[in-house]
Amino acid sequence: MLRRGFQAAVILGHHGTLPGATHLLPRFNPASAFGSSMESLVSRFCQEMKKSKNYALPNASWGPDMLSLYHEFLEKTKTSGWVRVPSFRSNRDHIQGFKLPLDLSANSDKSDWRLFTRCIEREGQGYEYVIFFQPSEKKSICLFQPGPYLEGVPGFVHGGSLAALIDETFSKTAYLSGEGLLTVNFNIRFKNLIPLGSLAVLNVNVEKIEDQKMYLSCVTQSRDQQTVYAKASGTFLQMHLEEDSSRQ
Amino acid sequence: MLRRGFQAAVILGHHGTLPGATHLLPRFNPASAFGSSMESLVSRFCQEMKKSKNYALPNASWGPDMLSLYHEFLEKTKTSGWVRVPSFRSNRDHIQGFKLPLDLSANSDKSDWRLFTRCIEREGQGYEYVIFFQPSEKKSICLFQPGPYLEGVPGFVHGGSLAALIDETFSKTAYLSGEGLLTVNFNIRFKNLIPLGSLAVLNVNVEKIEDQKMYLSCVTQSRDQQTVYAKASGTFLQMHLEEDSSRQ
Repeated sequence: MLRRGFQAAVILGHHGTLPGATHLLPRFNPASAFGSSMESLVSRFCQEMKKSKNYALPNASWGPDMLSLYHEFLEKTKTSGWVRVPSFRSNRDHIQGFKLPLDLSANSDKSDWRLFTRCIEREGQGYEYVIFFQPSEKKSICLFQPGPYLEGVPGFVHGGSLAALIDETFSKTAYLSGEGLLTVNFNIRFKNLIPLGSLAVLNVNVEKIEDQKMYLSCVTQSRDQQTVYAKASGTFLQMHLEEDSSRQ
Repeated sequence: MLRRGFQAAVILGHHGTLPGATHLLPRFNPASAFGSSMESLVSRFCQEMKKSKNYALPNASWGPDMLSLYHEFLEKTKTSGWVRVPSFRSNRDHIQGFKLPLDLSANSDKSDWRLFTRCIEREGQGYEYVIFFQPSEKKSICLFQPGPYLEGVPGFVHGGSLAALIDETFSKTAYLSGEGLLTVNFNIRFKNLIPLGSLAVLNVNVEKIEDQKMYLSCVTQSRDQQTVYAKASGTFLQMHLEEDSSRQ
């Protein structure tokens, strides 16, 4: 019940429907994230883990379009401040050493937890994607090659699978840009269907940060930018993760 | 290119951004769907297929909450006009004998295509869900028991995986209620996180049908209705599927 109460307070509190419950809001101090700068947050969150497989690396299923654009952005990580965001099997791997607020991380047994967008392990069948983040401009690019397990209308990407990947790219971008952690709302307008096996590029921007909320936008299009597949927006709630002293 | 042009015409044509392109719109005649009534559409769409496994049946991973509510609705299929919607591996199985407009069903090779919300086959690990549809009231209930592969925040359902299942439930409801086929837009507001392994109930209603568009709403909540997890709305475009004479 604590969990439910907490959630209600965090989200509804901002809409004024739970007046007086703001004492339940998590402590917020973006400038002191991890006791240092955004740069430190990014380098800590994006470090490689020896024990955790990074799914955001090329594999045999990646087509020429996906590979060449990947290498283009990899080059930008050396020259233009872009960061390749690693992608582990669970968010538990990303936040090792931190504790989630209150009872948010309740389930911690030995189940095979998986980040939803990494739930399909067979290469090329489901989500193939990699996110690159640009800290100084608070924006991301996600290269997305959808496999045949993401089908909706025969031959094309299920709208829900695109929505889920945009939400995931929002989520990582929001966290790295200012500790945005929970999706408050999400909106998507579909313009064209994405053929399975093709390449789609998600262009994500943090538009505004205000009152513990982060406002993000996404345009999903073909590599040549001639076809817009979808436009989306989302709002995230900022939450500060504290060091987990019990694990040190 | 035809496909892209078609898609743009279908969707953007309604927003007036592609004036003059309405000749590309698919033929629309909801009253004559399949040459008969909605009842016929429902019974054809919802028939069991001997060759296709129906994933919307109880399995060993279903918990007591999911099972008891399933049997409650199964009872309503005998007394109150509800229909249990079968769920096959691909939408290709649902629309056997029909052809999609123009070049929409381009990819028809022998790949292992899967409906996105049925992409995880391991029982209990991913999406466990069943949809019941009430034709006369144009509404649906989806019982959803999320497994550990749908994780976002550790221990809880990824917002994107809930969004995808709502979109899928919208999609089936829109089609059965009036041949709504393509999502035009989708909006979701998250209120509380759903613990993995629990039961969430999606309540979907067709709110309005107007100008070839269907407007749907969804409230996702706990079984006891004490916790609202999310509220969503979506717009679908109506498209008439024709009999595929080449396959008869």
